[in-house]
Amino acid sequence: MRATPHSQPKAQASTLQQRYASVRAQTERLAAPLSAEDCQAQSMPDASPVKWHLAHVTWFFETFILEKFEAHFVPFNAAFRVLFNSYYNTVGDKHPRPQRGLLTRPSLDEVLAWRAQVDTRMQALLAAQDNAQVCSLVELGLQHEQQHQELLLTDVKHLLSCNALQPVYQKAWPLATVAPVAARWIAFEGGVASTGHEGAGFAFDNETPRHASYLAPYALMNRLVTHGEWLEFMHSGGYSEPRWWLSAGWDWVCAHHVTAPMYWSQPQGAQGSHEGWHSFTLHGQVPIDPHTPITHISYFEADAFARWKSATDSACQGARLPTEAEWEAAVAPEFAQQLAAGNFVESRALHPMPLAKQTNGLMQTLGDVWEWTSSSYQAYPGYQPWEGAVGEYNGKFMVNQYVLRGGSCATPREHMRASYRNFFPTDARWQFTGLRLAKSMAKDLM
Amino acid sequence: MRATPHSQPKAQASTLQQRYASVRAQTERLAAPLSAEDCQAQSMPDASPVKWHLAHVTWFFETFILEKFEAHFVPFNAAFRVLFNSYYNTVGDKHPRPQRGLLTRPSLDEVLAWRAQVDTRMQALLAAQDNAQVCSLVELGLQHEQQHQELLLTDVKHLLSCNALQPVYQKAWPLATVAPVAARWIAFEGGVASTGHEGAGFAFDNETPRHASYLAPYALMNRLVTHGEWLEFMHSGGYSEPRWWLSAGWDWVCAHHVTAPMYWSQPQGAQGSHEGWHSFTLHGQVPIDPHTPITHISYFEADAFARWKSATDSACQGARLPTEAEWEAAVAPEFAQQLAAGNFVESRALHPMPLAKQTNGLMQTLGDVWEWTSSSYQAYPGYQPWEGAVGEYNGKFMVNQYVLRGGSCATPREHMRASYRNFFPTDARWQFTGLRLAKSMAKDLM
Amino acid sequence: MRATPHSQPKAQASTLQQRYASVRAQTERLAAPLSAEDCQAQSMPDASPVKWHLAHVTWFFETFILEKFEAHFVPFNAAFRVLFNSYYNTVGDKHPRPQRGLLTRPSLDEVLAWRAQVDTRMQALLAAQDNAQVCSLVELGLQHEQQHQELLLTDVKHLLSCNALQPVYQKAWPLATVAPVAARWIAFEGGVASTGHEGAGFAFDNETPRHASYLAPYALMNRLVTHGEWLEFMHSGGYSEPRWWLSAGWDWVCAHHVTAPMYWSQPQGAQGSHEGWHSFTLHGQVPIDPHTPITHISYFEADAFARWKSATDSACQGARLPTEAEWEAAVAPEFAQQLAAGNFVESRALHPMPLAKQTNGLMQTLGDVWEWTSSSYQAYPGYQPWEGAVGEYNGKFMVNQYVLRGGSCATPREHMRASYRNFFPTDARWQFTGLRLAKSMAKDLM
Amino acid sequence: MRATPHSQPKAQASTLQQRYASVRAQTERLAAPLSAEDCQAQSMPDASPVKWHLAHVTWFFETFILEKFEAHFVPFNAAFRVLFNSYYNTVGDKHPRPQRGLLTRPSLDEVLAWRAQVDTRMQALLAAQDNAQVCSLVELGLQHEQQHQELLLTDVKHLLSCNALQPVYQKAWPLATVAPVAARWIAFEGGVASTGHEGAGFAFDNETPRHASYLAPYALMNRLVTHGEWLEFMHSGGYSEPRWWLSAGWDWVCAHHVTAPMYWSQPQGAQGSHEGWHSFTLHGQVPIDPHTPITHISYFEADAFARWKSATDSACQGARLPTEAEWEAAVAPEFAQQLAAGNFVESRALHPMPLAKQTNGLMQTLGDVWEWTSSSYQAYPGYQPWEGAVGEYNGKFMVNQYVLRGGSCATPREHMRASYRNFFPTDARWQFTGLRLAKSMAKDLM
Repeated sequence: MRATPHSQPKAQASTLQQRYASVRAQTERLAAPLSAEDCQAQSMPDASPVKWHLAHVTWFFETFILEKFEAHFVPFNAAFRVLFNSYYNTVGDKHPRPQRGLLTRPSLDEVLAWRAQVDTRMQALLAAQDNAQVCSLVELGLQHEQQHQELLLTDVKHLLSCNALQPVYQKAWPLATVAPVAARWIAFEGGVASTGHEGAGFAFDNETPRHASYLAPYALMNRLVTHGEWLEFMHSGGYSEPRWWLSAGWDWVCAHHVTAPMYWSQPQGAQGSHEGWHSFTLHGQVPIDPHTPITHISYFEADAFARWKSATDSACQGARLPTEAEWEAAVAPEFAQQLAAGNFVESRALHPMPLAKQTNGLMQTLGDVWEWTSSSYQAYPGYQPWEGAVGEYNGKFMVNQYVLRGGSCATPREHMRASYRNFFPTDARWQFTGLRLAKSMAKDLM
Repeated sequence: MRATPHSQPKAQASTLQQRYASVRAQTERLAAPLSAEDCQAQSMPDASPVKWHLAHVTWFFETFILEKFEAHFVPFNAAFRVLFNSYYNTVGDKHPRPQRGLLTRPSLDEVLAWRAQVDTRMQALLAAQDNAQVCSLVELGLQHEQQHQELLLTDVKHLLSCNALQPVYQKAWPLATVAPVAARWIAFEGGVASTGHEGAGFAFDNETPRHASYLAPYALMNRLVTHGEWLEFMHSGGYSEPRWWLSAGWDWVCAHHVTAPMYWSQPQGAQGSHEGWHSFTLHGQVPIDPHTPITHISYFEADAFARWKSATDSACQGARLPTEAEWEAAVAPEFAQQLAAGNFVESRALHPMPLAKQTNGLMQTLGDVWEWTSSSYQAYPGYQPWEGAVGEYNGKFMVNQYVLRGGSCATPREHMRASYRNFFPTDARWQFTGLRLAKSMAKDLM
Repeated sequence: MRATPHSQPKAQASTLQQRYASVRAQTERLAAPLSAEDCQAQSMPDASPVKWHLAHVTWFFETFILEKFEAHFVPFNAAFRVLFNSYYNTVGDKHPRPQRGLLTRPSLDEVLAWRAQVDTRMQALLAAQDNAQVCSLVELGLQHEQQHQELLLTDVKHLLSCNALQPVYQKAWPLATVAPVAARWIAFEGGVASTGHEGAGFAFDNETPRHASYLAPYALMNRLVTHGEWLEFMHSGGYSEPRWWLSAGWDWVCAHHVTAPMYWSQPQGAQGSHEGWHSFTLHGQVPIDPHTPITHISYFEADAFARWKSATDSACQGARLPTEAEWEAAVAPEFAQQLAAGNFVESRALHPMPLAKQTNGLMQTLGDVWEWTSSSYQAYPGYQPWEGAVGEYNGKFMVNQYVLRGGSCATPREHMRASYRNFFPTDARWQFTGLRLAKSMAKDLM
Repeated sequence: MRATPHSQPKAQASTLQQRYASVRAQTERLAAPLSAEDCQAQSMPDASPVKWHLAHVTWFFETFILEKFEAHFVPFNAAFRVLFNSYYNTVGDKHPRPQRGLLTRPSLDEVLAWRAQVDTRMQALLAAQDNAQVCSLVELGLQHEQQHQELLLTDVKHLLSCNALQPVYQKAWPLATVAPVAARWIAFEGGVASTGHEGAGFAFDNETPRHASYLAPYALMNRLVTHGEWLEFMHSGGYSEPRWWLSAGWDWVCAHHVTAPMYWSQPQGAQGSHEGWHSFTLHGQVPIDPHTPITHISYFEADAFARWKSATDSACQGARLPTEAEWEAAVAPEFAQQLAAGNFVESRALHPMPLAKQTNGLMQTLGDVWEWTSSSYQAYPGYQPWEGAVGEYNGKFMVNQYVLRGGSCATPREHMRASYRNFFPTDARWQFTGLRLAKSMAKDLM
């Protein structure tokens, strides 16, 4: 195994103090509209209570940094070590994941007090030294906390959707009417491409090492698939035709009676028709907007849509999901511009947004929705997990999951990288997941 | 179907106002030690959140009384009608039972405000009229609320037991050391016995009509089975010998790896030995006290214990569970004295208690623990459910459940009657369930 | 525990030899229309393969009689002791019940050879001695084999129904068109009634001891509920109205999408209409005959039908299921005549039959279909299971099951008694189950 | 989609007639040691009865060839079209997969008669014409039948293992004692490699198109992992240490209490020790032989073993599973020699065999056991499924499965190709699955 995270230059400690304060404050800002009760409940085993998120990210700093580097370490509460361990077997026992919603103690107030105390101790630690390993671990802790900021939002969205009162997380709804943007293929030559992280700046171990892949010529669609296109898929019987679906996808559709993306509903009486579709958002229930990127779809749905599109739209013959290498090779060169244009959590839209203006290149690659790729989540050639308990972070999930790229409207902008790999099982839908079509190109067409 | 509940004399309205205030206040008193978060969580599908209990009993008054009898009825919040309906199909849709813990809205404060508003309206209604049907329904609503008071305690006990912090509902622990009381059979002649409710005073429809049963001569044990006797059963291999168990009981033991009553545990390292048994109580974790009545056992366990006792203790040959008619015929004549002696919720023990002093008759019949009987929960001959929606109260559960008698340490004293029938499936253990042995007697032994 | 089965007079040994030969031959006669492959398969965990039935009843004679009483006992194959043990924990390990269909070895031929060898040895044993205990156990073994004869037929019916080829067990179909018979209540006085077995003749331990019950005045319907009445229930929306159903019954209807009795189907295109109902029988698929007693219904369906009938037919107000004591007290006095009139397996109808002629009394009490009672399957007062392994026969199933009375078209006639108790869980439908309505009567109406 | 299978030169028709006869006869030869009852049973949903295999492969010829090309097509039995459809949605309804063992009709004799009739008609068709499409489809049908030959053996092995009689499929047991062969890394340079099928000869659509991949330098172990090495893994606590396991693998170990490969057992009393391990084979139960390649392991186990080996054996640092491209690039150049040396079904060992003699290169690449790769089963770049119903063959399973390479002791030799891709979910163990270690190499080590 290789040395823990990424080694930071020593001078960064004071910057890191500011960054620490900023990331930690943002987490609490996201929880602010929620009551202690909202923060308590767990709506499904895959999701966690907001209070648990608040506590677990704090547990990370206390367990992996303070316990090791603080002069006279005394835990805030020794029992929290078990309660808020997510999956680190090396660290010891864990509270059962599906029962996180039963931890009514500690209270939200206590968890916030714990956060405050850990913050004070962390700032003292950072002020007193500039140990490169500490800095690395702090950076890891902050990246980890940013991941949980996104989960906090998607988990609370799921929770609120279970309540017939349809509670609203944030009142403002920034959607404006816009003109549609035409879909257009953008070609890439392929060849031996290098992807993965290298050099300065933080990256998770699963983004390394940078390595070569051979890419046959391919094209990506200039924009994301939209709600409007999805309605066409539905109206043409997409959810009732086995031929569009992977075998396991069709089993999933039948077992769960899936007829639309997650969070979609129709008013009483409209069921079975093509009319009246709404979706539940963090702003409450809203009508489907056709120009908005589609979201809350599973890998199975993304794959089925591509097959349907390939077979029914001559302009899209051969449409499929991109591989993660195709995606990264295409996006990396223009990463900085795309990042600036992206609809991230900072825009407070908390929903994918239609394209306001058109450019000639790839649009909507960063932010809006995580894009499903056809790449199963595997180790890169030469991959080594980090040493120690933090090495349990990524590698042990490398099976039966698929990679998503690009971040979403719930991702912090500065958390994104061209090499960033998110991953979920093929039936997961509660994240802001969407898709961009790809296709292979014959060489002479280039 | 027969007329709704029991008709009350008109003069009772002002008494009823006092009683209404008292019962409603007691519910809130029971919830007082708990935070909004404690009141939010649902620890298993069988249990409900405390907040849900607080709301549902209020829903009962608003839906079944105010909606019908209030002059200008406007519901506090129309959506609550669905959220807090338990199982009344006649009333309309219901929020799914296993997801009651997801209702973070309305907040506990809103629910308490709803309670206060409904209380004001109910008192106004009671003050303005003396409609016998209203009085009957109010009495039913109060009895219903008392049932939920008990469930509130058993449900919160289960919730707190899931937390490694072992939270304490009530600090005081009233257990005093006492001398053991010898077990002794008390014989009853049997013959044609009348049981069931008749005459003045409230009773649920399932306690009626009063009817005759033929009882062969029998005996009941003078006291409840104790924790000490249960340890003997366990030490003799009770949980690993199929011969003591009903076939379905043995399947249950194997499927759930049952080795002790619910809430029992041993410290790390003592597992597998006979040492160190503790149980989780509303006062926290406490060592097993041998003279305390056994509790938190399933029907299967009660039945297996009786078979083991019958086969291994010559003084108990023929031991079995009593029938509900045997129990009621024996207890009814001395109901008033037993009631006075009972360990009910008012004693604040919230746990079964050892016998402080011995009498010659049946002891511990009322309070302490619900006593499993061998009687499946069925309609009495000539049974008619109440008319209307409240008729969905009892009759529709009359299958695959078994009757328990006598109330427990979590039951309000004034809620108890000799004819009272509680009922649970054979694997339920989270109520304060226990047992008293019975046996059949040859006639010439009397 | 009391002495094993019923003690037989010594002189019976030679009669018993004949009876042994006759019962054993009948089992093989029932299996004769089936191939080795038909005898191999197990269509659900509740059912057993025909080959397993053939072997298990032989296992009973070898294990409980030959092993104990044969001079130089050598088992046919020692491994069969485990393979064909059903549920006797005392006897040792068991092959897992849901995997009985995987026992392709021994072959059907080997099992038949085992049967022949055991028959020879059993006849030798019976010829050589007249030990009363042997005679008792043989009688028990024969009664046991007759029970499995019925299961063999109901299990193979279920198996054949799973095959789209709709195989026919027996070609001949004896149904003749008949005139309907009017339903009429027959009243009984009630009072202290004695039921249960006593005196000469075989009975299972669960039919004893004879004991007193108090019966309030009641009435039974003169005939069974018919397919025609069931169609009325269905057409009036019986399966979609929660108010007719026990709560657990409604859950069962919803979970399994139940819309008709078991084995009913409609042709492609007729689904959702009231037309075209057929049922699968041992004679293949046949149209529903309105005058035939309803069969293949669960306890839940029987109970729901009674509630619906009580509420919608003024002549049937108060209709409900009978208790087993009510049934036995009414049937026992005329047992012999009813038995003679009954449609048992010997009639080779293998289906309930319409009434050919009407009498003034109770009709169709014996044979045709097992009648659901509202009595949960419990020990009679003073019940003692038999000593030894055969004591595992009945008592350990006395929970969460309901009693059925009267035998069916698949029961051997001589196997029936007025005191006979069959029992199944509330959702079981693959037996020939049906119902007769009962009601309570006010005393002055008698 | 591209044209159906591979176009065959016209002259091949007569060769094809011989090949058809030979493959079809081999299937029946494999079923010959089994009784009609053995051929009836289905031991788990993943497996199929032998009779079903015999019928389904015949269904393929009748449905996809005769129905289309025979002059006056009349099906043998129209109902068989539904009964023996595996998963072709395009072809219509299917009998439910987990209930294949319930099809006692048609009998084995009828299925064999169907086979004979179809064989006659197929030979007539082949004799009469040389339509290239027919030839292609026949070749596909034969390859399909060979796949089912292997499944027939692995499925019947599972069935027989469920019987306490431990039936033997084939008496002869060819295992001879041999000296161990030392493990040694063999290095490969990597670079841009072409893999996948191209040119003459049959291949499934999923093996195409031939395409480039970039491979970093790597090494493969010269031989397969052995039972002896697996025992070391077990003795060192391999199955109880979460750190060796993927997170989903550890969940699988815990949920199924996995402590050894499939089919392993210890005698009564030895459980928990390191002694007495046996495995069930098609020759009955045999002691574990340390030099035999390990088999019947899941992807999870293969992956855990590699991690353990990497961490505990300095000669194996960095050990991991190979990718399928690494495997194919290494094996393809010496495919012909390896094929000749392989332990395939023709050797009648029906079990992986120890290496009799050592060579300098890769050994045991073909035959013995399927080798797990770390490659998830995905479409190759530019992949197109075949047109029509046969296009449902491979593509629709391309998710949540992992590729295995090289064939096994149950594979027909002539069925194997360097480009052949087998695939199973990560928990599948009933195939002859095993592993060969791989590792990445730094460039300068080459």
